[in-house]
Amino acid sequence: MSNLAAALDPRSIAVIGASENPDKIGGRPLLYLARFGFRGEVIPVNPRREEVQGLRTVPRLSDLARAPDLAIVAVPGEAAVAALDECGAMGVKVAIMMASGFGETDSEHGKAAERAMVERARARGMRVIGPNSQGLANFGTGAVASFSSMFLEVPPLDGPVGIVSQSGAMSVVPYGLLRGRGIGVRHTHATGNDADVTVCELAAAVAEDRALKLLLLYLESIPDPHQLAQAAEVARSHGLPIVALKSGRTAAGQAAALSHTGALANEDRVVDAFLEQHGIWRARDTADLVEAAELYLKGWRPEGRRMVAISNSGATCVMAADAASAAGLALAPLTEDTQGELRTILPSFASVRNPVDITAALMTNSGLFSQILPVIARDPSADAFLVGVPVAGRAYDVDAFGRDTAAFAAETGKPVVIVAPQELVARPFRERGLPVFPGEGAAVRALHQFILHHELMQAAAGRSKVAAVAPASPRPPRLLDEAWSLARLAAAGIPVVPHRLCRTPEEAVAAAAALGGPVAVKGCSPDVAHKSELGLVHLDLSDAASVAAAFEACRTALARHGSAFAGVIVAAMRRGRRELMLGAHRDPFFGPVVVVGDGGKYVEAMPDAALLLPPFDEDDVRRAIGRLRIAPVIAGTRGEPPLTLDRYLTAAVAVGRLMTQNPRILSLDVNPIVVGHDPDDCTALDAVVFESDEEVDTP
Amino acid sequence: MSNLAAALDPRSIAVIGASENPDKIGGRPLLYLARFGFRGEVIPVNPRREEVQGLRTVPRLSDLARAPDLAIVAVPGEAAVAALDECGAMGVKVAIMMASGFGETDSEHGKAAERAMVERARARGMRVIGPNSQGLANFGTGAVASFSSMFLEVPPLDGPVGIVSQSGAMSVVPYGLLRGRGIGVRHTHATGNDADVTVCELAAAVAEDRALKLLLLYLESIPDPHQLAQAAEVARSHGLPIVALKSGRTAAGQAAALSHTGALANEDRVVDAFLEQHGIWRARDTADLVEAAELYLKGWRPEGRRMVAISNSGATCVMAADAASAAGLALAPLTEDTQGELRTILPSFASVRNPVDITAALMTNSGLFSQILPVIARDPSADAFLVGVPVAGRAYDVDAFGRDTAAFAAETGKPVVIVAPQELVARPFRERGLPVFPGEGAAVRALHQFILHHELMQAAAGRSKVAAVAPASPRPPRLLDEAWSLARLAAAGIPVVPHRLCRTPEEAVAAAAALGGPVAVKGCSPDVAHKSELGLVHLDLSDAASVAAAFEACRTALARHGSAFAGVIVAAMRRGRRELMLGAHRDPFFGPVVVVGDGGKYVEAMPDAALLLPPFDEDDVRRAIGRLRIAPVIAGTRGEPPLTLDRYLTAAVAVGRLMTQNPRILSLDVNPIVVGHDPDDCTALDAVVFESDEEVDTP
Repeated sequence: MSNLAAALDPRSIAVIGASENPDKIGGRPLLYLARFGFRGEVIPVNPRREEVQGLRTVPRLSDLARAPDLAIVAVPGEAAVAALDECGAMGVKVAIMMASGFGETDSEHGKAAERAMVERARARGMRVIGPNSQGLANFGTGAVASFSSMFLEVPPLDGPVGIVSQSGAMSVVPYGLLRGRGIGVRHTHATGNDADVTVCELAAAVAEDRALKLLLLYLESIPDPHQLAQAAEVARSHGLPIVALKSGRTAAGQAAALSHTGALANEDRVVDAFLEQHGIWRARDTADLVEAAELYLKGWRPEGRRMVAISNSGATCVMAADAASAAGLALAPLTEDTQGELRTILPSFASVRNPVDITAALMTNSGLFSQILPVIARDPSADAFLVGVPVAGRAYDVDAFGRDTAAFAAETGKPVVIVAPQELVARPFRERGLPVFPGEGAAVRALHQFILHHELMQAAAGRSKVAAVAPASPRPPRLLDEAWSLARLAAAGIPVVPHRLCRTPEEAVAAAAALGGPVAVKGCSPDVAHKSELGLVHLDLSDAASVAAAFEACRTALARHGSAFAGVIVAAMRRGRRELMLGAHRDPFFGPVVVVGDGGKYVEAMPDAALLLPPFDEDDVRRAIGRLRIAPVIAGTRGEPPLTLDRYLTAAVAVGRLMTQNPRILSLDVNPIVVGHDPDDCTALDAVVFESDEEVDTP
Repeated sequence: MSNLAAALDPRSIAVIGASENPDKIGGRPLLYLARFGFRGEVIPVNPRREEVQGLRTVPRLSDLARAPDLAIVAVPGEAAVAALDECGAMGVKVAIMMASGFGETDSEHGKAAERAMVERARARGMRVIGPNSQGLANFGTGAVASFSSMFLEVPPLDGPVGIVSQSGAMSVVPYGLLRGRGIGVRHTHATGNDADVTVCELAAAVAEDRALKLLLLYLESIPDPHQLAQAAEVARSHGLPIVALKSGRTAAGQAAALSHTGALANEDRVVDAFLEQHGIWRARDTADLVEAAELYLKGWRPEGRRMVAISNSGATCVMAADAASAAGLALAPLTEDTQGELRTILPSFASVRNPVDITAALMTNSGLFSQILPVIARDPSADAFLVGVPVAGRAYDVDAFGRDTAAFAAETGKPVVIVAPQELVARPFRERGLPVFPGEGAAVRALHQFILHHELMQAAAGRSKVAAVAPASPRPPRLLDEAWSLARLAAAGIPVVPHRLCRTPEEAVAAAAALGGPVAVKGCSPDVAHKSELGLVHLDLSDAASVAAAFEACRTALARHGSAFAGVIVAAMRRGRRELMLGAHRDPFFGPVVVVGDGGKYVEAMPDAALLLPPFDEDDVRRAIGRLRIAPVIAGTRGEPPLTLDRYLTAAVAVGRLMTQNPRILSLDVNPIVVGHDPDDCTALDAVVFESDEEVDTP
């Protein structure tokens, strides 16, 4: 059990700076605690009043015989710091600092003050939410320690959704949207500056709540991925899905986050990979965060991606097919039996293929849904359903549509989404708990998210735990020259091209002869990461004179650029069928990141790559590669056989292991690594490794 | 003036099959004509009743002294066909056939019946809407000749929006969504099977209405692009924007459209190119179709893509920056002056950079908007604004926010979008005509659409008219061998590689010597489009023996595959820096289509290409190429100079001209066409041309 239990389910709450005025920060929580049924003890602290909002006050916290579980610090500035210290001294378990004006407004002194007060609190065993926190609200226990206006405007209802957010606004905006759709929300927490308890740590505590069916997160940065991984694991262990909106996706967004809250920027592609690895669905915006909520609350367990669309409008059928196909959901091919049965029910001009167009016949037979839905439900290929009624009016028994569809959904246990832009049509479906959307696009998006999120959670559950990673060395990075870089890779088990490091033209000529066939000659220097720009790469040399000339050209070019000359590499020429790349770096927040993808000269200009966070296995690499633009070329096209990736996949896993086990390696970049049709055709031709600048063995 | 004026603004309307029951197809239009203020004459035709819905009937149409402008045929089946013929005989100008059961249910006999009755009507000078039409509704004139239930459920209001749709449902779903937002809709027309008047032709007629500020179209197929081009031109001539939802985007959607309505499939990439060329914005789904409506109605003329975001929530600032950046809108860099002025107004912890975070200070100073908006409006870099108030409550004067923002929008004439998920906050903005969205994503999407659509319309206005294209030859296609293909291109002014067609090994060896340097030898056959799969391509041959051997290899390979041997092509080796492609085909609906893009072996497996419809110029090609994945490589990367595309652009324009002027050419595919850094480095190395099978000159 998390030590934040006192924040979520306290037995007693003190409000420091308690106010008679419920529109003040110190008055609002008292109003809410009374109104929303908190059953524990509430202690207003106010040295100037005997009573506040009908409750007896104490002049100061230290007047209490026993420390409260939770203290709300609703006084500003220096007084807040003093109050927090007093809470710590008293033995309060958790304090919520509502005061602002710390790290978010002054990234130097404010941050330092924040850090110091948190250190004092933790030394006394107290945890701090905030500062700059709008507060926590638990409508399950009535512990609503928040000053948000939202709960005045939109009345709460305890329910199966939890929201944990850094931002105050984004803790209540999704709340408002969900409540507007009749969905109950139990947790609505805003952590503010996250000086001690972060949004991720609080999310892990909230994820323990077995009553939840959906957990929504809003994050502007993820400074503590291990906490989020922990939240994801707790959630997954009891089937609780997490949907996260991580803003600061773009450089512009990150700059805004930095200037507003001092949030540290995460590399967005790494955030994507991390969330995917932990089975967390990523929402792109607020609408997206709540769009599929109803589907999660139904307890459906999707079993596949094949959808059946049913509508009284041909246009809805066409648009549903478009939306499904664009999203990657297939239209279930209905069996001949199903189609035959439908033909006996529907008029001759209806379409019994998927999408099923029941036509305006619905107008004269409001029982059509009850007749056709069971037939379609028996079809083994149908994993999920979209029922669209874009228009209906007084000639239709829309209540029967809602009733029949709800019965069908309950019976099959398969996901159903409804498209009903008219409120009159939407109501009978919504009242029976079915997810209703105003258009085909939104309905299919929600269904797609729900199904793929389920797959993501299953994949995450089957994954091995994140390996402990030794912290990266604090020493500055140092470029290894190509010879040392290749040696590092070879030692890790990655197949590298046969090559020799040569210090003289004679050595180079002898190496070429020993390797046999045409060779490549490349200038080797610990000062140069990109060789081709400096003319340090000479390919396809077949005779001694060209090798010797290339040696001299490399030496001269390096000298001209003032770069150290470590010799030249003479390497066998290997081309393979395709140049791939294989890279890795050490993310400051997420640790080792491995990059797999298409290789060659233009990997930055025209990237086609996927990120993987160790530990991962060959199948993960294969799936990642399978989603890339080059996937059809790898599968074989234009009469070419497929490329054999086995050794490449193994090499990618080896790189993940190397990065995990050897914290001195800061980044590596193998490009190209050529692959072919033969299982043995996998060879790293070039590599650049950065290590921390410590004593390094010679290769 | 269009001859469809009688459909949109008739002086008299006859209803054939007039019914007393307003819930019947023949009763509903009578109800609507009375209820929605039609001021012309209404004549119910019914042989069995003297009076219907309070109006005197005539037994049959021929009893009238004068033909009505418009006749609604509301009887089914054979009776409908007879009634239509009677309308034609009487001299009715336009008839609306509501009867279904024709082409949409029976693609053979139904289609034929449809075609025959339309031919008879047109021979008598009558135009037909339908069959299977839900009818037309003009709330400007009260001519509501429709049986849709929607107008009972959602009361109409005349306004600046027109909707023209093939589908009945999709004529009223956008109507319902817009009316739900308080927007008036004048035209709501459903054309049905489009046997005579198509949705595009009707759109051209509706586009003449100068009261419109937005025209929405729903199309399942575009069989008559010239009509749509005409509609776009009429609309553009008085600044009327068109937003079109063309469904059947995907193969699944096209199959659904085909099975439901017999709609012919358009190639979707060509639809994209066509709509863009004519300045029509393409919506992807219903929500998209209406999302930006409010912006179009304001009369704003956007002048650039630089947005300023202003909010009392840091999270909204971050998410607005993310959304803008992802959509391709820039955040306007506010000048030092602007920032300085803002600093004097906003508290020290606010952010005066863009996005502007005015913080919770808004709670204590509801006049903040009125103070800062004029300062920001003066900044020359601000083209458009996003104002976000995600949360407010009783402490805020939200009415003042609405008032101040509306005054600001009116004064600057620049687009403003509001983000206000709470109804309480949204209302004062909406009531003043400002576009309000529930989230940053939707607001930025709408703004982005509005700005880019404006740019699209301007570009379309500056474009030369679509050239008349001779109809494609009906004769079957015939593959030209490479020699003939290259000759066709050379004749059209496209630079082709120096080459000779050789019938003997001796000729080949002599040609290689004459060309000088290494050569390529390629088997030439009118039976083979893809040479490399058959081993017909031999590159980099430097000596006579290899040339002769390659000749024999080609001859043997073709013989083995039973393909005709037209000789071998001996061509100079040219590599250039990048292989591009240049293709063209003749779309059955849209005519010539030119494809420009990255070349090489994998153009189908990994396409990176753009489509252009002639006529276009070099700048159009440059812009199209500039949006491709290869754009950074063309611009120069990794220390390489930019590629010079001048001759490639000219070649693309020449291909467009060739396709327009020579209808015998069905398709051509130049791949690769290599380009380099030198302006002269542009050479077509290989080409495949299909012509219609007529007498062909030898090259």
